[in-house]
Amino acid sequence: MILVADRRLDGPVRIVGAGLLGASIGLAMRERGVDVILDDISPSALELAIDYGAGRAGVDGDEPELIVVCVPPDVVARVVAAELAAHPQALVTDVASVKVAPLEELRTLGVDLSRYIGSHPMAGRERGGAISARADLFIGRPWVIAGHDDISYRGAAKVEQLALDLGALPIEMSADEHDRNVALVSHAPQVVASLLARRLGGATESAVSLAGQGLRDTTRIASSEPELWVQILGANAEPVVGILRALRDDLDGMIAALEQPKAPGSRRAIAESLAGGNAGVARIPGKHGQANHYSQIVVNVDDVPGEVARLLTEIGEAGVNMEDLRLEHSPGAQIGFAEISVLPEVEERLATELAARGWKIAGAFA
Amino acid sequence: MILVADRRLDGPVRIVGAGLLGASIGLAMRERGVDVILDDISPSALELAIDYGAGRAGVDGDEPELIVVCVPPDVVARVVAAELAAHPQALVTDVASVKVAPLEELRTLGVDLSRYIGSHPMAGRERGGAISARADLFIGRPWVIAGHDDISYRGAAKVEQLALDLGALPIEMSADEHDRNVALVSHAPQVVASLLARRLGGATESAVSLAGQGLRDTTRIASSEPELWVQILGANAEPVVGILRALRDDLDGMIAALEQPKAPGSRRAIAESLAGGNAGVARIPGKHGQANHYSQIVVNVDDVPGEVARLLTEIGEAGVNMEDLRLEHSPGAQIGFAEISVLPEVEERLATELAARGWKIAGAFA
Repeated sequence: MILVADRRLDGPVRIVGAGLLGASIGLAMRERGVDVILDDISPSALELAIDYGAGRAGVDGDEPELIVVCVPPDVVARVVAAELAAHPQALVTDVASVKVAPLEELRTLGVDLSRYIGSHPMAGRERGGAISARADLFIGRPWVIAGHDDISYRGAAKVEQLALDLGALPIEMSADEHDRNVALVSHAPQVVASLLARRLGGATESAVSLAGQGLRDTTRIASSEPELWVQILGANAEPVVGILRALRDDLDGMIAALEQPKAPGSRRAIAESLAGGNAGVARIPGKHGQANHYSQIVVNVDDVPGEVARLLTEIGEAGVNMEDLRLEHSPGAQIGFAEISVLPEVEERLATELAARGWKIAGAFA
Repeated sequence: MILVADRRLDGPVRIVGAGLLGASIGLAMRERGVDVILDDISPSALELAIDYGAGRAGVDGDEPELIVVCVPPDVVARVVAAELAAHPQALVTDVASVKVAPLEELRTLGVDLSRYIGSHPMAGRERGGAISARADLFIGRPWVIAGHDDISYRGAAKVEQLALDLGALPIEMSADEHDRNVALVSHAPQVVASLLARRLGGATESAVSLAGQGLRDTTRIASSEPELWVQILGANAEPVVGILRALRDDLDGMIAALEQPKAPGSRRAIAESLAGGNAGVARIPGKHGQANHYSQIVVNVDDVPGEVARLLTEIGEAGVNMEDLRLEHSPGAQIGFAEISVLPEVEERLATELAARGWKIAGAFA
């Protein structure tokens, strides 16, 4: 239940670019009772986002307090400059995945930056467009605010308020720090996933018939839009190249070791690469920006309608709050299983209660 | 509900190696009423698997009809040879992730192969050991049976029966074809995920604070055991190296393009790599070995106990069978969402019924 009072920004908010991010911001702010003005260079994209309830078309005399530019990286600086000129009272931000290039381009254009501050919500989906938009896209996600010296602390406040209103977690860092960080945690992984997936282009049917969840997860983001990613990678090329070169050196080492797998030192080299992967993956915080401290209970669930509901009802009756749920279900198979995440202190009690009610516990993990 | 009659193998089945795969096979066959004899070089691992109900310890006079060797790749051939000698009536199989090397080693050892056929269930978890075992591990998963010329069709039948009893899908291919296939869909992805994750070893807190689901998915399998993977990669080095070399060439091309992102041809080279990734990922079948033809409905769910149960109860009342469910939940946020997968023909009706019952539909996707 969202209360209208539960918001920091009063609006109007103007959103330029009615794709996934723009329409999602619009939906969420409209839920909070804020007047949202949408614009897009494509009339049909604009109409679609309006149909979805993400905002209204602009009219003469609109005076937005905040403008959010949600356009591809290549055109961010020009659109920001135009918005600053057209709305001399408004604060302007953008949500592009790169922050140095637009800022430099704005400086080159000689734009007064006292009303501009870039930002970047760490949220997205493989599917783009207003059709994929949702109001809860930003909940619990980091929202980088890329501070610079030409805007005052108070002048930038509305961007932080927007992030908080959307349920995101504002994090301040410089444009340069942001770009180096996302090169590591987002842009290089995109390249790696794409190059790995590209190897499947010539795969036989026999090979892809053996594909499992590991391959699906490793290559999932390779289905992202090339047009957008060419812009992102091009605009953040130098930090990305630095990571890719280090990765290539590691890859060369792995290839050399596997060319002579029985040579002295080869097994050690392979093991150290794999152990380095263990250590690296352990650095990644859990799903919600914190280490995952939940315990899991896996319960067998018969494949008939209502069984999962009955399970969850009984978890509720046991007074346990479920933190997360994964359901695995194989069509044609007679059973699936539900992996229930709970706080560690209630795991044992819940397992006991469920077993007493006749549920088959397939496993429990700390 | 598993009926005892619903099985092809009568047993006893002897399982050598009581880790994840061995204990999971034991659990599943015991559910079907089959006598399962467990063995392990580690007495404590054996006791643990017996405690979990995966089988019993062997006694003199046991006459298994099928022996399943579930030990690491390096020792498969020796254990298979010993089992063939100790049990002259039994068919012997193994479940290792490589199939050429054990077969060649058995030939080198001069073993009669008329009672041995290798196999490989395409199932696993990042967590190993009997503690992670579950009876439904193989349901819906491909189970490769690596035929060779020294065993008759009828002689190999019990391995296919085992796979079917476990709910897996038997697929016959040669050891060589298997090893080339898994190099592409499993072993090279493991290397790539590990090398990418290794880059995170030196990441700042600031960088990892921005990690999202894309990074988590791309690196998830990098948490696998190095000890096991050194053996797998070493035993399948040549096919894996072939894929890694092609990947390195693509990576070199990407690095060259990003070194000069504004040079003529650079953007095109980047775009073609990314588009190649799109095409490759499209080759991967859906979760259950087939393209995913479900539609998704996303419903807002208040973060209070019992809400998800109420939702699923009402889906059941609407007479709709849910094919899959993903629940997203942010601690501290007031709402999460449930992504419900259903057959496309019922999506619209379900969305209408849920909306009529007051549920907030955040989105619906074909």
